[in-house]
Amino acid sequence: MDDMERIDRARARAWLATAVEEARAGLAEGGVPVGAALYGPDGTLLGRGRNRRVQDGDPSAHGETAAFRDAGRQRSYRGTTMVTTLSPCWYCSGLVRQFGISRVVVGEAETFRGGHDWLAEHGVEIVLLDDPECVSLMRGFVRDNPALWNEDIGE
Amino acid sequence: MDDMERIDRARARAWLATAVEEARAGLAEGGVPVGAALYGPDGTLLGRGRNRRVQDGDPSAHGETAAFRDAGRQRSYRGTTMVTTLSPCWYCSGLVRQFGISRVVVGEAETFRGGHDWLAEHGVEIVLLDDPECVSLMRGFVRDNPALWNEDIGE
Repeated sequence: MDDMERIDRARARAWLATAVEEARAGLAEGGVPVGAALYGPDGTLLGRGRNRRVQDGDPSAHGETAAFRDAGRQRSYRGTTMVTTLSPCWYCSGLVRQFGISRVVVGEAETFRGGHDWLAEHGVEIVLLDDPECVSLMRGFVRDNPALWNEDIGE
Repeated sequence: MDDMERIDRARARAWLATAVEEARAGLAEGGVPVGAALYGPDGTLLGRGRNRRVQDGDPSAHGETAAFRDAGRQRSYRGTTMVTTLSPCWYCSGLVRQFGISRVVVGEAETFRGGHDWLAEHGVEIVLLDDPECVSLMRGFVRDNPALWNEDIGE
């Protein structure tokens, strides 16, 4: 790992903390514990959010789409980074590809493998952090709420 | 075209009328004129909606995601049909694939070619209607609002 890579991963970990806060808050509300945040090219936090299926009865609010929504209208997503506690599902991967979000920081892809390889094939930079807290949040949730989890990913 | 196909296309055209109503309402509000509706396996209308980027300042509300949201939580999307005035972008195609929506009725794919071929490759039934009103709605909108249209598809 060179210095640049080390710095990038340190920043990615700092940004992941925002997404983890969202995921924890979701769990405390009885929701699906996936959180996300959208950062601008200069490191400004543009938006943050969490899965709101349970809280709002809104199946369209995944962590990533909630953060995207929270950021409001943007002219361009070039240089932006979507940080998410969990590998993005096809819905959220499609969001990233359509809007040209440049990078995705993924907390973990162990409990659910979404579309991050597909995004990498289409030029999106992927930083996979294998974060133990993200794994543990999801593992506990899926164990305790299998039906809710399957509903959230359409299975 | 056999009888079954003829009946299916007639039903698809009837369902498309709901999506077109939504698109027209969006245009009248100054919004992006893309509308959609989600129909259940038995032909019940589950949800309908339109792009709300301008109306709500919400970039996450495309026609298809708005209709999906309006349908609320569903245990399964098997046998459902998403009807949309315009070929679904990657974001909306990802939605269809992730949640296992069985069929997509596409009003037109002439002014914008989204992910409907990708969906077909992944087992989603695609009914492309080449509807002249859908083409004309989008063509007029893109001519008069090129910047807004590019913003909506991340270009």
